[in-house]
Amino acid sequence: MRHLLATEGLTYDDALTILDTAEEMAAVTSREVKKLPTLRGRTVVNLFYEDSTRTRVSFEAAAKRLSADVVNFSAKGSSVSKGESLKDTVQTLDAMGADAIVIRHSAAGAAAQLAASDWSEAAVVNAGDGTHEHPTQALLDALTLRRDWHAAHRGSGSSTSPRGTDLAGMRVLIVGDILHSRVARSNLWLLRTLGAEVHFAAPATLLPLGVESWPVTVHYSLDQALAAAPDAVMMLRVQAERMGGAFFPTAAEYTRRWGLTDERLATVADLTLGETQSPALILHPGPMNRGVEISAAAADAPQTRITEQVTNGVAVRMAVLHLLLTGDHA
Amino acid sequence: MRHLLATEGLTYDDALTILDTAEEMAAVTSREVKKLPTLRGRTVVNLFYEDSTRTRVSFEAAAKRLSADVVNFSAKGSSVSKGESLKDTVQTLDAMGADAIVIRHSAAGAAAQLAASDWSEAAVVNAGDGTHEHPTQALLDALTLRRDWHAAHRGSGSSTSPRGTDLAGMRVLIVGDILHSRVARSNLWLLRTLGAEVHFAAPATLLPLGVESWPVTVHYSLDQALAAAPDAVMMLRVQAERMGGAFFPTAAEYTRRWGLTDERLATVADLTLGETQSPALILHPGPMNRGVEISAAAADAPQTRITEQVTNGVAVRMAVLHLLLTGDHA
Amino acid sequence: MRHLLATEGLTYDDALTILDTAEEMAAVTSREVKKLPTLRGRTVVNLFYEDSTRTRVSFEAAAKRLSADVVNFSAKGSSVSKGESLKDTVQTLDAMGADAIVIRHSAAGAAAQLAASDWSEAAVVNAGDGTHEHPTQALLDALTLRRDWHAAHRGSGSSTSPRGTDLAGMRVLIVGDILHSRVARSNLWLLRTLGAEVHFAAPATLLPLGVESWPVTVHYSLDQALAAAPDAVMMLRVQAERMGGAFFPTAAEYTRRWGLTDERLATVADLTLGETQSPALILHPGPMNRGVEISAAAADAPQTRITEQVTNGVAVRMAVLHLLLTGDHA
Repeated sequence: MRHLLATEGLTYDDALTILDTAEEMAAVTSREVKKLPTLRGRTVVNLFYEDSTRTRVSFEAAAKRLSADVVNFSAKGSSVSKGESLKDTVQTLDAMGADAIVIRHSAAGAAAQLAASDWSEAAVVNAGDGTHEHPTQALLDALTLRRDWHAAHRGSGSSTSPRGTDLAGMRVLIVGDILHSRVARSNLWLLRTLGAEVHFAAPATLLPLGVESWPVTVHYSLDQALAAAPDAVMMLRVQAERMGGAFFPTAAEYTRRWGLTDERLATVADLTLGETQSPALILHPGPMNRGVEISAAAADAPQTRITEQVTNGVAVRMAVLHLLLTGDHA
Repeated sequence: MRHLLATEGLTYDDALTILDTAEEMAAVTSREVKKLPTLRGRTVVNLFYEDSTRTRVSFEAAAKRLSADVVNFSAKGSSVSKGESLKDTVQTLDAMGADAIVIRHSAAGAAAQLAASDWSEAAVVNAGDGTHEHPTQALLDALTLRRDWHAAHRGSGSSTSPRGTDLAGMRVLIVGDILHSRVARSNLWLLRTLGAEVHFAAPATLLPLGVESWPVTVHYSLDQALAAAPDAVMMLRVQAERMGGAFFPTAAEYTRRWGLTDERLATVADLTLGETQSPALILHPGPMNRGVEISAAAADAPQTRITEQVTNGVAVRMAVLHLLLTGDHA
Repeated sequence: MRHLLATEGLTYDDALTILDTAEEMAAVTSREVKKLPTLRGRTVVNLFYEDSTRTRVSFEAAAKRLSADVVNFSAKGSSVSKGESLKDTVQTLDAMGADAIVIRHSAAGAAAQLAASDWSEAAVVNAGDGTHEHPTQALLDALTLRRDWHAAHRGSGSSTSPRGTDLAGMRVLIVGDILHSRVARSNLWLLRTLGAEVHFAAPATLLPLGVESWPVTVHYSLDQALAAAPDAVMMLRVQAERMGGAFFPTAAEYTRRWGLTDERLATVADLTLGETQSPALILHPGPMNRGVEISAAAADAPQTRITEQVTNGVAVRMAVLHLLLTGDHA
């Protein structure tokens, strides 16, 4: 791998390499020993054309734990706001010695355009490009799902490490605004590659055109989707500006029909991971609108993995930066 | 100590430990040897819901001198501005591996709420919560006052270090907008703990309700307050938006009645530290409105300790981070 | 040198020392070995009263490669926006232990005022003060020009290093909004010191009053200026807000008369470096308005040195910080 642009097209082997390396990163770092020297002297630039403090901080923490120098370049107030092109900005960062460019951009394909160009020798990591992809989010979700899936299924005598395993047989339900969600797209491709079965539950106005041809089962009712017994339920953030008008009448109506309410939490609590006794999982990429797409009780339930997702995000980003910049498999 | 939330309730012993550790930090670091390795690999997050570059930079400098990694998380443009709760933001930072969270928030009690929660294992430092407290500001003021108080009173043969000493017998006058000032509140409690006598001078509209029951002498005239011969005069910043309307008629009128003008500077110049020959002190937490609450001559007078306060701020914050994160007493 | 405030008055020896040290910095750092330990424990503060992500990132990268700690202090949202004076801000940064202050300010003379004051012991680097000077930009331009000028002229048996050489005999044409350009001013003085001949080409409304008395040849037509066979053409950024009204009618008209269009690129392509066969050079300080002051083809032409300028910017800033903070000549 030279870049990480998308999970669509990411091979099974590369996906497993990233997940296994992330397990390694999680294992060797802890509150006591946090820093590895592997990227000492390397410069990681966070080039963010859209605000996203969470994602930026996660990449920053990952890079610093590998001892890299981090430079944050926000488009706001920069030469970008003076009309500089992506090409010129990237050539500038390259000339300053960027080894990796983590890019968040509102345009689908921005990261791929950068990687395909000769503007820079830096490794490119897509940190979200419009409604297209957000591959490290899908990878951290997969890391999270894999641990529980493996733990639930392993024989009593087997290793506790999920390394080398995939998500074969797992059923993952993604709920909400699929239309605008790069998280849903990146998850779909990666989950399929890892052998999982993907379900979407969404109002028709928040589904993309042509979704029928995607390798996914679509439900037009959340309650029917839950009746199909998913192993994991991934709630998407709903954006206030989608409410009203063409997309959806009101937030309260959205919650009633598509929210993981306390009532639906009771339904989920009866589900298990496959044929095991372990409970089915609840995920959310954050930030949550508590009380809208997810109730407070669901956000804090024992089978909810939201904080694990955040922790795993740092490990996955360490793995990606490490693999892209050193070529080593940890 | 696990957190530093307030000076109200901070014990005499803990206060002296912080001040003595800060003296140690000031002694072992200098322009030549600035970095200590004590927090290498630890992550300090500055979680600022209100802008405060001065305080953020001071904590950042303190953490970096202890070799910690620093991540700045400003609420502006972050998931916070998308409606994320304090709880979810803090759980996110915890999941990313924050060892200490330095929080500035507009709501009184925000830091205490965080510390009382199970949202995070991180040490919490209150960097200002509404009009409630700003404990490191009071500690840096105490560090500043103690050095001069000790130097003025020590016998010729005694040690030059103020370690282990307190402010018994010192009289400190705090002037201005007490009503909205967390600096005044934090100073009041800490100064009392350290044995000092506290005076307030303020217009009635800028005093809190119930101030009569506080352990403080209130003056409704700055000139009368100065006649009571304070050892130190701490001028509070006055905020332009308090002028006009309910609080105070105009800035010029404020200056005439409550400003440390050149005329009042002459009065202060005749005061001494207790019975000694050393001059009484002038402090200001910054940023100053020169010409409003303090004249330029007063800001730059020989007995003014404003830059010392800033320097001591870094030492105090180093001490606090060191004590909270290592449990060691330097 | 204690500060770097301007190229006007910078001696020939000091200029050459900076350029030679920058060559050294460029030689000893690379994508593999990027960090030098020379400024470990030192703190460099970027004090930016105007947004300039490019310049800030360049200084930040330079300081980090020398292992310094970097603190970014943007005037926005800081105590500065609450009315704090430059004096008080600088005293604050000094009290926090700043070893170098890199200042960008809208007022001509701000850096010099700081350096002449007793507000701080820190070394001061002018990163742009109004329309006055931007010395590190001129130094990086000189570094860029010197390499090509030396390479074109050296005998086959001579060393490849340009160290110790100057720009004697070189003819440099600066084109565009001279009136508002600190880049033009800093280049003029430094290029003259290094023995180069300077030409300006600009509309009369974008030339400063009294330019006739400067040591420069002024052209009121770009085509005539190119006919004078410059060795390098430096295009200045044109700011949209100068278009219309007093300064210039429209951007399209500006391009037609003062832009480095594809037609004019053909003219430049016929020029050489002095009597050699090497092509004349094209420079631009960035960020570019492609299609306005420079065509896309000109921006990407083989004789264009824009990305080299950016790379050299980091080397020059490393050299300046190193020289000011260590006193050593590398």
